[in-house]
Amino acid sequence: MSKKEFNVAVVGATGAVGRTMLSVLEQRQFPIKNLIPLASERSAGKKIRFAGKEVAVQVLTPDAFEGVDIALFSAGGARSLEFAPEAVKRGAVVVDNSSAFRMDPTVPLVVPEVNPEAVAQHKGIIANPNCSTIVMLVALKPLHDAAVLERVVVSTYQSVSGGGEKAMLQLWQENQSLSEAWRNYSAHESIRDAVALQKVDVSKSQVMAQRIGYNLIPHIDVFQSDGYTKEELKMREESRKIMGLPHLKVSATCVRVPVFMAHSESVTCTFSKSISPQQAHALLKKAAGVDLLDNPQENQYPMPLVYGGRDNVGVGRVRQDPDDANVLHLWVVGDNLRKGAALNAVQIAELL
Amino acid sequence: MSKKEFNVAVVGATGAVGRTMLSVLEQRQFPIKNLIPLASERSAGKKIRFAGKEVAVQVLTPDAFEGVDIALFSAGGARSLEFAPEAVKRGAVVVDNSSAFRMDPTVPLVVPEVNPEAVAQHKGIIANPNCSTIVMLVALKPLHDAAVLERVVVSTYQSVSGGGEKAMLQLWQENQSLSEAWRNYSAHESIRDAVALQKVDVSKSQVMAQRIGYNLIPHIDVFQSDGYTKEELKMREESRKIMGLPHLKVSATCVRVPVFMAHSESVTCTFSKSISPQQAHALLKKAAGVDLLDNPQENQYPMPLVYGGRDNVGVGRVRQDPDDANVLHLWVVGDNLRKGAALNAVQIAELL
Repeated sequence: MSKKEFNVAVVGATGAVGRTMLSVLEQRQFPIKNLIPLASERSAGKKIRFAGKEVAVQVLTPDAFEGVDIALFSAGGARSLEFAPEAVKRGAVVVDNSSAFRMDPTVPLVVPEVNPEAVAQHKGIIANPNCSTIVMLVALKPLHDAAVLERVVVSTYQSVSGGGEKAMLQLWQENQSLSEAWRNYSAHESIRDAVALQKVDVSKSQVMAQRIGYNLIPHIDVFQSDGYTKEELKMREESRKIMGLPHLKVSATCVRVPVFMAHSESVTCTFSKSISPQQAHALLKKAAGVDLLDNPQENQYPMPLVYGGRDNVGVGRVRQDPDDANVLHLWVVGDNLRKGAALNAVQIAELL
Repeated sequence: MSKKEFNVAVVGATGAVGRTMLSVLEQRQFPIKNLIPLASERSAGKKIRFAGKEVAVQVLTPDAFEGVDIALFSAGGARSLEFAPEAVKRGAVVVDNSSAFRMDPTVPLVVPEVNPEAVAQHKGIIANPNCSTIVMLVALKPLHDAAVLERVVVSTYQSVSGGGEKAMLQLWQENQSLSEAWRNYSAHESIRDAVALQKVDVSKSQVMAQRIGYNLIPHIDVFQSDGYTKEELKMREESRKIMGLPHLKVSATCVRVPVFMAHSESVTCTFSKSISPQQAHALLKKAAGVDLLDNPQENQYPMPLVYGGRDNVGVGRVRQDPDDANVLHLWVVGDNLRKGAALNAVQIAELL
């Protein structure tokens, strides 16, 4: 594309990722001629503010893509499958945040810090990876370049915003109900029976499989027959495709935690040769998209409270395995709506 | 010991673990002649209820152990170092919940489901392991007996009750302050800026290194020079001693999560031979102290909300590694105050 300004459609403009896309486009001063926010009929007509102006949300139809140069999709897999080809047919390049096209061999799956060159292969659609995958690979790429990654074991601590606005509302409402219930106790009395405290029934508008307030849910996306969830499978398959390592060993355990923003990951990586924490520090310090924050003696390590709203991925707790010098353990935290979704999509659009 | 009833002292009787010890002794109808609750001067004179009677807390002094048969210590390492030998001198057997004696080669470190035979070696003191270690080993022992454990990589999700009553109060107060702050917003408006929502400043009575409300802290106990925390080191060293496997490879990443009760752990175990999830299920189903809860199609897996207050350790999400048939991934949840501390100590006393 050689134009200087682009007509940009944002599909799913009123959702958690869509709204983040709008603010990222604004903050990065993406060269936009016309912004076209699209959503389902339910949200059409709503006004959103963009670059100081009010813009009306339009209904998502095939014809809405007439004249669009770049379409950023974040409205779920079914909408992407239906409307992305329509956008491409009308001349737009689609950056799709759903899982619909990610494993399609004809569609590039891109993390700009990892495989920017893949963008050039696109045939109209470029897929944006899963949030947990993006956050992890930004941290692993610079280490892989130096020591060749062979195996990854990852346990995630994923915030509710990864489940969309309804999941965030569930956590909010559970918290408010619990607080209300607790108002009847003195703090000390309640703490003395923490089990009862934790178990107050607050299930109301439950969209996740379980209550999340003061709980953990080892279940994100649907279960496969082998006992892994789709989320866990995505971390494996997408990592292989993005890294260009079709035999990379990856096993994930994905867990929802009662945090609003930012995903955290405890990552164990096996390399083909020894790599010391000092070497890893030097590599991570100069890596694009990474904040090295690893100063435990000063209580410095990445946390979701700090990394919500940030662009970079925080990496800390870098430790060599005590039994295997080829193994490093890392603690990685990134904003799942920004780097894990909206920012990554806009960065892909910038590569165009 | 051949008496039918025992004089039992509980040291640290007013703390989170001490109170749980009292309720476990009651529930299990431990054969108690006299209960002697001991604590620092600050708590002395307080009345506690035990078996329907009020008992006054006495000051912890060497002479308080005169006539005591069994002393259950949970008042921190310094108190154990000072007073456990005094109790032993006066004829008591000490079960110590602190880390003071755990790695002492002359002191047995016991999980009754794993190494009950070690109790017989005691010279007056028996150590109770770290909560995270106990919860993990109850799940791993039956699998080790069948397939020989070689390596463990574990990421923990530890509740605030592991940090004692003050840490629980911190989470409670942060929650109440956040709820109060949020009362000024409508839910939907706040959710639209989840970053601001998460970052409301509520630091007041902070006893943990960081805020825990809507946050994760990858930092439990103090950091060592190699970047591991003492908590992570304990999981390694104590596992080796309890399992009688001095070369077992163990690496842990320990993380505090905003949950009141029960520790959860994502455990990757490498065995010396292939072990299928079906074999693991059969072994776990008949294992002492274990609930097998692994029916993902029905959304059944252990969660801290359910396992707070339970005696057994819940095991679920049993999956074979897709690249290595000798590797299993498990999700393990146990009440850190009960099985992770008080219950395990009382079980040790029962073995006496």
